[in-house]
Amino acid sequence: MSLTTGFIGLGAMGAAMARNLHRAGLLTTVWNRTAAKAQDLAAELGIQASTEPASLAAQCDCVVLCVSADADVLAVVDRLLPGLRAGTLVIDMSTVSRDTACLAAARIAAHGGQFLDAPVSGGVEGARQGTLSIMVGGDTRHLDRARAVLEAMGSRITHMGPVGAGQATKAVNQVMAAGINQAVCEALTFAGALELPLEKVIEVTGAGAAGNWFLQHRGPTMTRGQFAPGFKVALHHKDLCICQAMAKALDCTLPLADMTLADYRRLMDAGHGEADISALYLEKTERTP
Amino acid sequence: MSLTTGFIGLGAMGAAMARNLHRAGLLTTVWNRTAAKAQDLAAELGIQASTEPASLAAQCDCVVLCVSADADVLAVVDRLLPGLRAGTLVIDMSTVSRDTACLAAARIAAHGGQFLDAPVSGGVEGARQGTLSIMVGGDTRHLDRARAVLEAMGSRITHMGPVGAGQATKAVNQVMAAGINQAVCEALTFAGALELPLEKVIEVTGAGAAGNWFLQHRGPTMTRGQFAPGFKVALHHKDLCICQAMAKALDCTLPLADMTLADYRRLMDAGHGEADISALYLEKTERTP
Repeated sequence: MSLTTGFIGLGAMGAAMARNLHRAGLLTTVWNRTAAKAQDLAAELGIQASTEPASLAAQCDCVVLCVSADADVLAVVDRLLPGLRAGTLVIDMSTVSRDTACLAAARIAAHGGQFLDAPVSGGVEGARQGTLSIMVGGDTRHLDRARAVLEAMGSRITHMGPVGAGQATKAVNQVMAAGINQAVCEALTFAGALELPLEKVIEVTGAGAAGNWFLQHRGPTMTRGQFAPGFKVALHHKDLCICQAMAKALDCTLPLADMTLADYRRLMDAGHGEADISALYLEKTERTP
Repeated sequence: MSLTTGFIGLGAMGAAMARNLHRAGLLTTVWNRTAAKAQDLAAELGIQASTEPASLAAQCDCVVLCVSADADVLAVVDRLLPGLRAGTLVIDMSTVSRDTACLAAARIAAHGGQFLDAPVSGGVEGARQGTLSIMVGGDTRHLDRARAVLEAMGSRITHMGPVGAGQATKAVNQVMAAGINQAVCEALTFAGALELPLEKVIEVTGAGAAGNWFLQHRGPTMTRGQFAPGFKVALHHKDLCICQAMAKALDCTLPLADMTLADYRRLMDAGHGEADISALYLEKTERTP
């Protein structure tokens, strides 16, 4: 039996994911901190906009969260608990720390609910096309229940371990994404200094052993000076702070993530926090004569 | 009319590329510094092994080079010049500096020959499957003549500009490959410290916005401690020294390439120079508790 699903957090990723739940016939209601966004989407899709997370929770078998930061997840969880029915499944698809996932899970379990952390990768393109890679932490029985909901949003759903393992995997993903951003921007800045035709460089390096998603999807725009998100510098900065804290606790060093945090800090100070992370190319090219 | 083609330099890449020229009916003779390798391949394919680069050049319309270092390319060019006929096309598919490409081109042109620099990317897999990405510098008329020869070895052939532009593009590719190696090894080391199931981490991150060729092709082996080349540490080290010199002349900094050179130096000092570049994972994990 399909789960009636409510969606909380209608940002660039969340709105696209909610639309895919609607296409799959699962979405019944939405809530967003800025209420107008929820009302507009609800009117467009012919569904309900809830006035409170608790009232949304009260009428759903499944609640999906996609918000920005650790504090937001915990605040929204606290606001939905009063309406939570026994057995309701809460899926947090935000990118937050492993500790936050464990805290949220404990609060929901104490109210008789079920919890999965299920952050995603694949960019806004993946969110729109329903081809996200979803990394799941939590009980496999809860994942079995959640499968149709997750399959409406992603094409690869991978169970990583107990609660928090989804977020730990996402942290690894964000560290890798930071390093790849550095690799692509360093190489394309070098290509510019060599006065090579950048479009062809992107094509030819993309087809070989240095090929990667980021080069293919962001290379053509970054080298034309276009930095519409995509994935915002300020959000990746937030994610990398989480990664840095997790790594520190494990005595593990992340030199590329550290370098990227410093570069993003400079970009944010220069007013590029809302730009796509490929704006790192600006940082690199501006430091090259 | 198809070009009779001789191949010089039968290493892991070169031997695989020569086999594809043979399959296309183009290969007539081979030469290698260690003669036994040429004799073995010639016997297997039913073609000729030349005793000197000059005698190889004397009987071919096209000579393909795939050797290791700048000095090797210039030495082989000098040894083939005495046999070079007017109009013979020499294609250097080695990875060397832009300056070496220009020197080699000038020497060959002075003997009435034609020259293209055409380094490749795509790993030994790409060399075996004939799916290399080939970045070409030189006259477009020479490239038109070379096309059937190159198409026997690669699935993407891109003209990058005048002589040297192929090598400049390859330098960019090698810088990007170094950065991606760093990104993947840093992220997977972090995943290990988080005690995540590494095979699943590789799958799930590979399917999202951090996805890349290197993770997909080398992630599964490096995390099992398997470092058979592939692409050797000592060769990538050599390439990155070329990149560093080119960047220095342009006042362009390459922090990830510099970091990788230092890491590779330590790997080579520890006896891993002949290992695949994914042995960088050893460097990272050994520095993590």
